[in-house]
Amino acid sequence: MDKQQLKDCHQRIKPFIHDTPVLTSRLIDKIGNANFYFKCENFQRMGAFKMRGAANAILQLTPDQKKNGVVTHSSGNFAQALSLAAQSLGVKAYIVMPSSAPEVKKEAVRGYSGILSECEPTLTAREQATQEIINKQGATFIHPSNNEQVILGQGTACMELLKLYPDLDYVFTPVGGGGLLAGTALAVHYFGKNCKTIGGEPFEVDDAFRSLKSGKIETNTTTNTIADGLKTQLGDRNFPIIQEYVEEIVRVKEQEIVHAMRLIWERLKIVCEPSSAVALAACFKKKELLTHKKVGIIISGGNVDLSKLPFRPA
Amino acid sequence: MDKQQLKDCHQRIKPFIHDTPVLTSRLIDKIGNANFYFKCENFQRMGAFKMRGAANAILQLTPDQKKNGVVTHSSGNFAQALSLAAQSLGVKAYIVMPSSAPEVKKEAVRGYSGILSECEPTLTAREQATQEIINKQGATFIHPSNNEQVILGQGTACMELLKLYPDLDYVFTPVGGGGLLAGTALAVHYFGKNCKTIGGEPFEVDDAFRSLKSGKIETNTTTNTIADGLKTQLGDRNFPIIQEYVEEIVRVKEQEIVHAMRLIWERLKIVCEPSSAVALAACFKKKELLTHKKVGIIISGGNVDLSKLPFRPA
Repeated sequence: MDKQQLKDCHQRIKPFIHDTPVLTSRLIDKIGNANFYFKCENFQRMGAFKMRGAANAILQLTPDQKKNGVVTHSSGNFAQALSLAAQSLGVKAYIVMPSSAPEVKKEAVRGYSGILSECEPTLTAREQATQEIINKQGATFIHPSNNEQVILGQGTACMELLKLYPDLDYVFTPVGGGGLLAGTALAVHYFGKNCKTIGGEPFEVDDAFRSLKSGKIETNTTTNTIADGLKTQLGDRNFPIIQEYVEEIVRVKEQEIVHAMRLIWERLKIVCEPSSAVALAACFKKKELLTHKKVGIIISGGNVDLSKLPFRPA
Repeated sequence: MDKQQLKDCHQRIKPFIHDTPVLTSRLIDKIGNANFYFKCENFQRMGAFKMRGAANAILQLTPDQKKNGVVTHSSGNFAQALSLAAQSLGVKAYIVMPSSAPEVKKEAVRGYSGILSECEPTLTAREQATQEIINKQGATFIHPSNNEQVILGQGTACMELLKLYPDLDYVFTPVGGGGLLAGTALAVHYFGKNCKTIGGEPFEVDDAFRSLKSGKIETNTTTNTIADGLKTQLGDRNFPIIQEYVEEIVRVKEQEIVHAMRLIWERLKIVCEPSSAVALAACFKKKELLTHKKVGIIISGGNVDLSKLPFRPA
C-alpha cells in the first residue's frame, strides 16, 4: 500500500466521517514528561475510528457488489460502523452477532439500520451464519480489521493528526485485530518526519507482542482484559505491515489501563473506552524514551457501558 | 451593566481562558425535537466556566489590591478557579474551605497554588476565617457568584456561543448562585436576536424559581440534590438581572438530571457535572416550546468524582 492510496482513501471517505479534534492536557504532559496530542476518535461518528475503515471498504465495492450488501461478524464497534457506513451509502449491512451479545449493542446496530442475524456464541456458528448470508444474499464479507481497505481507512485518523502536528516523534495506538496499528504505521511512514509508531497491548491478550517476537501470528488462549476491543486476533494482512513499520509493542497491566483511563476522563473530560487508555498506559511505560518528545495518541473510541465503570474511590 | 462592559470583559480575560468548543448530537436533537448547541465549559481551564469570572474579577483590581491578594470561601469550582486565575496573574489567592471538604478538592486548590485555610463547617466559622484574612493580609474578597465582575465574566461563554451561532432562539443554563444565569441573560440580551434565556433548577433547591415568583430572594431549607454545584444561594447582585432578563426557570427532578447527564456522556462522549445536565433536563421539559428551535446549552463544568457516578444498569 502506497502513499497515494492513503491520500485517495482520505478524500474518498471525507464526506462520511468527522475530522475529529485533537486535545491536550498540561497535567498529563507533566506526568509523562512529554507533549501528548490526543486524536479523539471517540468523537467520530458512531463513537470509534472503525467508521473510517468501514466507509472505505464499502466505497471500494463495485456497483453490483453494493447492490447485494455487505456482511461482517462483530459484537463490537465494527458492527455499528459497518451498519452506519452502509446506511450512509444506501447499502444493506448484514451483521452476525452472538445471541449472547448485550441487548444495547444489538439495539445500536438496528438503530443504524443494520440487519441483525443472531447465532450461537461459537466460532463455527458465526462462520456458518456469515457464509449463509454470503450464499443467499450475495453480500460481500468485510473483515473488521484484516482487510486492506479497512486498514487504509483506519490510517486516515493519523493522517489528520500529522497534518495538524507534522513534527510528532511518536504515535501510539492500541492493538487488537491490528487494523488501527497497521493503518497508523503506514500513515506515519508516509506522512511523518522521523516519526515512529508504537503499539500498546494488554499483557492479558499479548498476541501481537508475541507475534512480533516469534515472527509468526500467535494466538491468545484467554482474553481476560478490561480492554474488550482488543480481544481480537492479528490477521495475515495487517501482521506484515506491523512487522515492517511498527517500532515495538509495549505491554501494560490491567491496573495501568484503568489508571490511564481515569486520567483521560478526569483531565481531558472525555469518555473513552478502556482500549483507548492502553495507548496512554504504554506511553507511561516508556517515559525515558519519550522525555520532552511530541507524542500522538489515537483515542480509539468512546462506546462504554456507563453502569460498569472500573473507577474505585481514590 | 452594558454591552461595552461585556465586550471589554471578554477582551480582558481572553488570554487566560479557552474559547471552548461547541458540540452537537443528532440523537439528542431527535429526542428533544430541536437543534441543540452545547457550549462545553467542561473543557475550560480547571474544568468549569468559573474560570471566566474569577479571571475578570482579579483583572479589575488595582495594582495595590493585586499586591495583597484575593480571598474567597468555596468548596467547589470557584475555589479552583480563583486559585488558577490568581496563579496565572501572579496574585495570591486565599481559599477558605470547611475542613470536612473532600481531600481531592483541597489538593486541587493547592495544585493551583491556592493558599488554603480550613475552618469548621459552619457559616459563622467560614465568615470569621474570611474576615481574618481580609484584616491580616488586606486581601480583597471575591464572591463566587454575587459580584458584578464575576457575572460579566460568566457571560462571556454565551458571547462566544452566540458568535458562532447568532440565530439561537433560546439559551439554557443551570442556576445555583445565579452568576452564570445572570451573565448569560445579559449576553443574550445584548448579543442575541430575539433570543431568550431560560434557567434550569433542581426541584430540591428551587430557591431561584420561588424567588422569581415571590419577587424576593428565597432560601432553601434542604439541599438534597445530585447537582452539587447548584446548592448555593441567589444573591442581591444577580437576582435583579435574572428578574429583568430571564424568561423563566424550569424545575427538574433528580432522575431527570441523571437521565440527561447519561445522554450527554453517552452521546457527546464528554464528562460533565450533574449541574450541567440540569440545563438539558430543563429543555426536555419544554419540548413543545422548543420544537424545531435552535437551543444553546451551557455545559457548566466537568469536575466529578468518577468513583461516585449515578449510572445504574439500563
